Amino acid sequence: MNTLPFTVEATQGNARAGTLETLRGKVQTPVFMPVGTQGAIRGLSPLHLNQTNSQIILANTYHLSQRPGHRLVAKHGGLHKMMNVDLPILTDSGGFQVFSLPKTVTEDGVTFQYEVDGKKTFLSPEVSMEIQQALGSDIAMVFDECLPYGADKQETSESVERTARWEQRCKDVHERPDQSLFGIVQGGLFRDLRIKSLNELIKIGFDGYAMGGLAVGESQTEMFNVLDNIKEHMPDEKPHYLMGVGTPSDIIGAVKRGIDMFDCVLPTRSGRTGLAFTWNGRINIKNNKYQKDNTPLDPNCDNLSLNKYSKNYLNHLFNTNEILASMLLTLHNINFYQELMSAIRKNISEGTFDQFHDKYIDKL
Amino acid sequence: MNTLPFTVEATQGNARAGTLETLRGKVQTPVFMPVGTQGAIRGLSPLHLNQTNSQIILANTYHLSQRPGHRLVAKHGGLHKMMNVDLPILTDSGGFQVFSLPKTVTEDGVTFQYEVDGKKTFLSPEVSMEIQQALGSDIAMVFDECLPYGADKQETSESVERTARWEQRCKDVHERPDQSLFGIVQGGLFRDLRIKSLNELIKIGFDGYAMGGLAVGESQTEMFNVLDNIKEHMPDEKPHYLMGVGTPSDIIGAVKRGIDMFDCVLPTRSGRTGLAFTWNGRINIKNNKYQKDNTPLDPNCDNLSLNKYSKNYLNHLFNTNEILASMLLTLHNINFYQELMSAIRKNISEGTFDQFHDKYIDKL
Repeated sequence: MNTLPFTVEATQGNARAGTLETLRGKVQTPVFMPVGTQGAIRGLSPLHLNQTNSQIILANTYHLSQRPGHRLVAKHGGLHKMMNVDLPILTDSGGFQVFSLPKTVTEDGVTFQYEVDGKKTFLSPEVSMEIQQALGSDIAMVFDECLPYGADKQETSESVERTARWEQRCKDVHERPDQSLFGIVQGGLFRDLRIKSLNELIKIGFDGYAMGGLAVGESQTEMFNVLDNIKEHMPDEKPHYLMGVGTPSDIIGAVKRGIDMFDCVLPTRSGRTGLAFTWNGRINIKNNKYQKDNTPLDPNCDNLSLNKYSKNYLNHLFNTNEILASMLLTLHNINFYQELMSAIRKNISEGTFDQFHDKYIDKL
Repeated sequence: MNTLPFTVEATQGNARAGTLETLRGKVQTPVFMPVGTQGAIRGLSPLHLNQTNSQIILANTYHLSQRPGHRLVAKHGGLHKMMNVDLPILTDSGGFQVFSLPKTVTEDGVTFQYEVDGKKTFLSPEVSMEIQQALGSDIAMVFDECLPYGADKQETSESVERTARWEQRCKDVHERPDQSLFGIVQGGLFRDLRIKSLNELIKIGFDGYAMGGLAVGESQTEMFNVLDNIKEHMPDEKPHYLMGVGTPSDIIGAVKRGIDMFDCVLPTRSGRTGLAFTWNGRINIKNNKYQKDNTPLDPNCDNLSLNKYSKNYLNHLFNTNEILASMLLTLHNINFYQELMSAIRKNISEGTFDQFHDKYIDKL
């Protein structure tokens, strides 16, 4: 089964510009996926999603299985229909969320209490596959074990082996022909374990390969080291996905190291707290100095229909606790991330990505 | 000066369908103005405003004079530019807000403490005109005295006389040629005082006449009585505006009594609390019974691009405290109000308004 043809169209060093062909349309990479944890991108109207040039979004298996429940979603025609979104959707496996909760891990899976109502819940490779197939996402992720930052080599090694067994179990029970399945590479900051993990997954065979267990507290240098250590080993013909990352700078540096896909709550979460990403760097729009600043939030933004609001107006909206403050800044940030991805892709295609990287890696 | 030509195009009984010609475009009446108190319609993206067929919006003199400050708004090109809204804007005078605060009223004006920071503030006919002219709204309202529900006849009579003097002072200092000025009829529930107030205003001469001092706690029957008592006295050739009203039922009944213009926070405020207005009546979308209801919020809604969301999805969004819950329900409610106004207008034009009134007056 390969429901996700992937073509690399241009490269510069390890950086790649390509196209993923999902059953819901083509996705040009490198791509950023806005996060719709509970079936909604927080603060962003689905009616604005296309205007931001978003091509694919992420939703969360763990949260949706609890509320409204994956069986209800399936009964009502799946996640796309519920959300009224025509774009492809990638669902994570729940592993990352569950591993931040108090839990009991056995070879079978993970037992934990649901954080909202304390209900005892069990998640395993088979359960995660059942949920994701019920949700009907275009890309499902295997259920992996995600260790905290600082786990030692022995613990990490055991976890890598268990994760490989879990990923095989995911592959064994996954049967939805219109859904792709990605493997997740673990191994912490250890070069040999990362390569070992990747090789186990390649043996199983997936439609794409993700780097997991990052964005858990490590420095950017440590994260880039992990990518440098593994980049020559990643299968060229499959998409490479760095989960939960990150800042614009993280993304630029990761693309340089061969990553094609990203997701992160940063642009949406920041939008709600007043932090705007712009081509001139970050702005805290709540800062008093913007009260009298009538210039646009980002004069270098390409999408002026979205970005015509002045700093003083946005400052006023935050100052008066208007919902529109979060709405407009979230819209701006998602749009900025998508402009960033377009610029990255264009520079790879034109052979100028190294200059782009050097210009922006410390600025954004 | 008449910056606001008004043409009545069809009548049925006292109900009128007409056109207001503002300098920012034509407004078909009867019209509902969504409320953008602080320079933002709460929870509604300005990018969606046109999709709801809104023709004119309201903003608030009292709130905007405090934050961000009318001088700052003027310096930056006025309220339309700040909000990035091309539609006409009507500003209220601040009277209604101020009279709900602890205050000292003299012939000069009203002294009160600003509710956010306790700053001592003075508002008068002259100050209100200065603020509204600085904001640059298309329609300004005179500064009137708004009494609480239950004020006795003596007090109301004195207030009507003071209001007339204040309205004359507004007219005297109002000089912006691109801004219309409406008078506000006071007089509580007293027929003779309402007529006296109206006649004083007609002597002064305004571009439109508003009914003030309603929506302050009286019953619908009392409000309709006030309108019945005065409807034959209102100048036919000017627009009639009922301030701060109301429910769909209130609006239908008021149109029957000759009202052309409305504003109310009900559709936006209700959108944030889960109350949806539909052609089948009101729905509290938070109700558990909607968890498994996959039907659209309002199958009779004309605007299916806005209204394609199912009850169970909206219930889920409220249940999980997603901002999108308020956003989508506010959008729905504003759109419903505008569909209601279109239907009212169409029925007046086609001579079927009485049947429409009787069908919906108790249902909506």
